[in-house]
Amino acid sequence: MVQSQQKLDRELVRVQDLTPEMADKVIWLRARVHTSRAKGKQCFLVLRQQQFNVQALVAVGDRASKQMVKFAANINKESIVDVEATLRKVEQKIESCTQQEVELHVEKIFVISQAEARLPLQLEDASRPEGEGDEDGRATVNQDTRLDNRVIDLRTTTSQAIFRLQAGVCMLFRETLTKKDFVEIQTPKIISGPKCKYNVYLPNLYWQPWVKHETFCLPVFFRAEDSNTHRHLTEFVGLDIEMAFNYHYHEVIDSITDTMVQIFKGLFQTEIQTVSKQYPSEPFKFLEPTLRLEYTEGVAMLRQAGVEMGDEDDLSTPNEKLLGRLVKEKYDTDFYVLDKYPLSVRPFYTMPDPSNPKYSNSYDMFMRGEEILSGAQRVHDPQLLTERAIHHEIDLEKIKAYIDSFRFGAPPHGGGGIGLERVCMLYLGLHNIRQTSMFPRDPKRLTP
Amino acid sequence: MVQSQQKLDRELVRVQDLTPEMADKVIWLRARVHTSRAKGKQCFLVLRQQQFNVQALVAVGDRASKQMVKFAANINKESIVDVEATLRKVEQKIESCTQQEVELHVEKIFVISQAEARLPLQLEDASRPEGEGDEDGRATVNQDTRLDNRVIDLRTTTSQAIFRLQAGVCMLFRETLTKKDFVEIQTPKIISGPKCKYNVYLPNLYWQPWVKHETFCLPVFFRAEDSNTHRHLTEFVGLDIEMAFNYHYHEVIDSITDTMVQIFKGLFQTEIQTVSKQYPSEPFKFLEPTLRLEYTEGVAMLRQAGVEMGDEDDLSTPNEKLLGRLVKEKYDTDFYVLDKYPLSVRPFYTMPDPSNPKYSNSYDMFMRGEEILSGAQRVHDPQLLTERAIHHEIDLEKIKAYIDSFRFGAPPHGGGGIGLERVCMLYLGLHNIRQTSMFPRDPKRLTP
Repeated sequence: MVQSQQKLDRELVRVQDLTPEMADKVIWLRARVHTSRAKGKQCFLVLRQQQFNVQALVAVGDRASKQMVKFAANINKESIVDVEATLRKVEQKIESCTQQEVELHVEKIFVISQAEARLPLQLEDASRPEGEGDEDGRATVNQDTRLDNRVIDLRTTTSQAIFRLQAGVCMLFRETLTKKDFVEIQTPKIISGPKCKYNVYLPNLYWQPWVKHETFCLPVFFRAEDSNTHRHLTEFVGLDIEMAFNYHYHEVIDSITDTMVQIFKGLFQTEIQTVSKQYPSEPFKFLEPTLRLEYTEGVAMLRQAGVEMGDEDDLSTPNEKLLGRLVKEKYDTDFYVLDKYPLSVRPFYTMPDPSNPKYSNSYDMFMRGEEILSGAQRVHDPQLLTERAIHHEIDLEKIKAYIDSFRFGAPPHGGGGIGLERVCMLYLGLHNIRQTSMFPRDPKRLTP
Repeated sequence: MVQSQQKLDRELVRVQDLTPEMADKVIWLRARVHTSRAKGKQCFLVLRQQQFNVQALVAVGDRASKQMVKFAANINKESIVDVEATLRKVEQKIESCTQQEVELHVEKIFVISQAEARLPLQLEDASRPEGEGDEDGRATVNQDTRLDNRVIDLRTTTSQAIFRLQAGVCMLFRETLTKKDFVEIQTPKIISGPKCKYNVYLPNLYWQPWVKHETFCLPVFFRAEDSNTHRHLTEFVGLDIEMAFNYHYHEVIDSITDTMVQIFKGLFQTEIQTVSKQYPSEPFKFLEPTLRLEYTEGVAMLRQAGVEMGDEDDLSTPNEKLLGRLVKEKYDTDFYVLDKYPLSVRPFYTMPDPSNPKYSNSYDMFMRGEEILSGAQRVHDPQLLTERAIHHEIDLEKIKAYIDSFRFGAPPHGGGGIGLERVCMLYLGLHNIRQTSMFPRDPKRLTP
């Protein structure tokens, strides 16, 4: 066990750096035993570091004894080992490894951390494309087994790629907004008073117009409602934007859609391809500028497709998906904005449409037919805000601090909150949000 | 009220861009009325945008009527206005404004959002250096009034600078670690099972060695304990680092201290100077490489200064501060690492020192004598971890998922959590952590 007994001056090489250029060098390496196969006087190991792996050969001869080969053959999969080895070029490409042109001839091998012999799931099984197991009897791993053993499931190349992409979404979100002169702020999660109608908690809005003109934040949200669906979690990460605008809330929509487009464009292609090998999906399409439809247009498209609904009815989830398909057919985009929602289906702090009081200055954004953002111009006038709260039968005492915050001059402003896990799921064409949450939480899952 | 009635093609100029080069241009501007002073047929306004402000003159003449001057004079402070004006160079510098060489000659003025006449606090008072009010009878604003009216208090130049610096700390933290190949992850906040001894929640560690070799995270922490002090909050933001290391946990210390040094070096000087005008403090000093002292050395220094304490006693807060002063005197640094804490004062998952079982591979980091980070090599062997948990009388059933996560190969690893608000407070030499939390939460404060 490495207990920091000594400071070794020994350099450890990364698997991804093992290329023919380094051939014939003697190197030290720390990696996991991915697979192990003994064959007479030889033992073939595949050594893995995150998404990279290399073949290693322990063979009886000058450098290794019979005991050492036996020892190597008995190391459990997923154990972490240190090896000293000579890197050799190979004649024939090793198709099963990422480092195809070289292999390691091992001279020394030490076990740094021994894994238990029985793994609760096999990485090969967890890495198999969906459905493939069914055909030829090879196993795949179901969602619950994966999540119960997330520590191992997260080691697959696909998982590694998903969470690298998620980090990329966060980074691109921040970079784009910082360039636009937004400032990142930290908002409180502990708040007094219960939630308002429509399941919207005030803290989403807490900080809106107060501090800076343009702010963004990556808060964590907790949801007490139904989270048993493929797209809900009891805990999720929000990418929140709020900004003052000059004349029209479409300035806000433009800022958000531009940020989304920068994210779509900036994401790492290698990781996207890695995920699509296990979970194939149509490449994600988007337009520049982003398509913006009015709610009434959306309703008209749905009616033309046979859906019966009133002008001011909210969209059901199936109708959102259907509309997504219709929009894709007509405009060839997986990303669009639906603008001017009926006022009656939006929270009290939503600014009514000045030209038609049935509608509002609010919008949702969709990826592959599923909502990823809900936003609006917020009412910034304390008088109108009070009226709207009364209309929604909200206890004014409980939102006093919120209303009062507008009494000392507040600019017109708007924004929205993007669900990080949803953006990752939908961009990659995955079908369950638990795949894009590292340790997902839902009403049935509090561990690991 | 701007309700997005129309899209205007009118450009709004930023206050910070008003320089002599733009003289004699007619511009539109949106800003807050910072101060207002009527004087016969003239009205002088100071218009403010965040930390920038400019003088504006409304005078009876060709462009403005008597009514308009009166109207301008009656606009409440903190209201938001749109003005059309000609920018003019001035003969004599306007010392009270950031834009000293120009003033605006106003032709039109519209109120976009009217502030109430009675402000709960005056920005001038809130911007005054501490103690200054006492001498000449001018008012200062106490902490509770500030926090009760945080919406207005956050508008002071000092507050603006503090929270820009805070955003800078987050950005530098992420940039430095991303360059070092760390990956940002999102960890769950909802966890099953109660906290362990020593007030350390397991989720701090949740994800440690599992996913990637190097990770960082900016989680929010909630604290149920005593938060009535100048340096505790019930809710704070953590800058968390966990990493696998090769041979010795000092590799972890080096990574963290280097990250801190990059933050210290990268912070914006303008903002630091702004804050120090209102809250003067000694410039923050640090060494490269960072000073690392062993716990026994720290105890020896304290004893020499007259403190009586046992070898394995924990440091009290006053002794931490005293040691900070002694270290500053001897080494001229405000930042240092205290290494090798007694095992008995650290949580169960702390790796014991291999050469002396009374001590441990753990460390705290201090800024100006106050702790900003607590960290350690974590025990990565399930057997030793179980033994240590039993020794600490922890219910094994409640940490089963944690212990089990080490059964399938785990690299030696360590890390620590930095308190964002504390780093900002101590770097700036402020004296209360509520100044560096936008909407601070403590046992007595849940709003605004």
